[in-house]
Amino acid sequence: MLMDIAKLLVKIGALRFGVFTLTSGKKSPYYIDLRLVPSYPGAFHFVIEAYKRVLKGLKFDAIVGIPTGSMPYASVLSYELKKPMIYVRKGERLHGTMKRVEGWLNPGWRCLIVDDLVTTGNSILNAARSVRAEGGIVKDAAVLIDREEGGREALKRDGIRLHSFSKISELAKILYEMNVLEEDGYRAIIAQVKK
Amino acid sequence: MLMDIAKLLVKIGALRFGVFTLTSGKKSPYYIDLRLVPSYPGAFHFVIEAYKRVLKGLKFDAIVGIPTGSMPYASVLSYELKKPMIYVRKGERLHGTMKRVEGWLNPGWRCLIVDDLVTTGNSILNAARSVRAEGGIVKDAAVLIDREEGGREALKRDGIRLHSFSKISELAKILYEMNVLEEDGYRAIIAQVKK
Repeated sequence: MLMDIAKLLVKIGALRFGVFTLTSGKKSPYYIDLRLVPSYPGAFHFVIEAYKRVLKGLKFDAIVGIPTGSMPYASVLSYELKKPMIYVRKGERLHGTMKRVEGWLNPGWRCLIVDDLVTTGNSILNAARSVRAEGGIVKDAAVLIDREEGGREALKRDGIRLHSFSKISELAKILYEMNVLEEDGYRAIIAQVKK
Repeated sequence: MLMDIAKLLVKIGALRFGVFTLTSGKKSPYYIDLRLVPSYPGAFHFVIEAYKRVLKGLKFDAIVGIPTGSMPYASVLSYELKKPMIYVRKGERLHGTMKRVEGWLNPGWRCLIVDDLVTTGNSILNAARSVRAEGGIVKDAAVLIDREEGGREALKRDGIRLHSFSKISELAKILYEMNVLEEDGYRAIIAQVKK
């Protein structure tokens, strides 16, 4: 299944290799944009299946979406698994008395955060803070792809276990073995995640 | 089905009657927050069924979500109906060269805008502008509830036909007949939509 997802992401242009300058100014040997996935119904269904595998065996009462990237996945998983969904508000829109969570969060609920990617973990940590501020318990987060830039460790320090369908190095390895990704590109990615 | 939806919305607190001051400063005899729905799996499934009825017979190539309120519905409808989903960016986050649409929009696609509510129609009109700027065709918009405050007419002037599961006056009428809404409250709503 990892092979299929890897091929699909490359095919729809959600995963590209080369030299990219991120908005932070940092260079990256690959670019990933999972917001393209829901525009391709076949890919969307495949990715939801991948998430379902990640969620299998996890204990949770509610799913937490993070606007806007994870909303398509959190929404469909909530619908399919018949679990309540809540979502966090964007930090910039918070006023003094505003709720930080949209939807109904029952205090004491074990809340699973669903995001598309994890890089440094900040986005998930912020979501966890909002959920905990309203009485939710956060012990797990699920993503499709771990970019391996410290997110897993940062979450662990906050008591959150990260569950990912794949790590970027695994995706790169499989695409290298399939001759989709050339050796230079593969080495650049391995070097980046090891840093 | 309208009766079930009306009862459900009241039960979960997504539709409340009384005197409310909206963020605009305007008073309203009712308050509606459909962002609560996905927190109740039964209600979420019911509301998706209602949307499916609205979408039945409409011709479209893609579904357009409007963050964040409509994302749960647009996402699940896209997944269930196997139609590509795109979504518009929030106006405040637009920079000069930024795309106004997330996902892949094929020029010439007939794009159905899905929102939760329509009031004045501005939110849908902005989404239509973004989609059209990237080559999409917008002729229809679907919402669960029409608040009957000029949105339908504003959309029509822009060549967009509004399809709603229910009008707020219909919801109020059914709840009045079921003795959930008292006469004063019912009259206040009818007076508001007639204004």
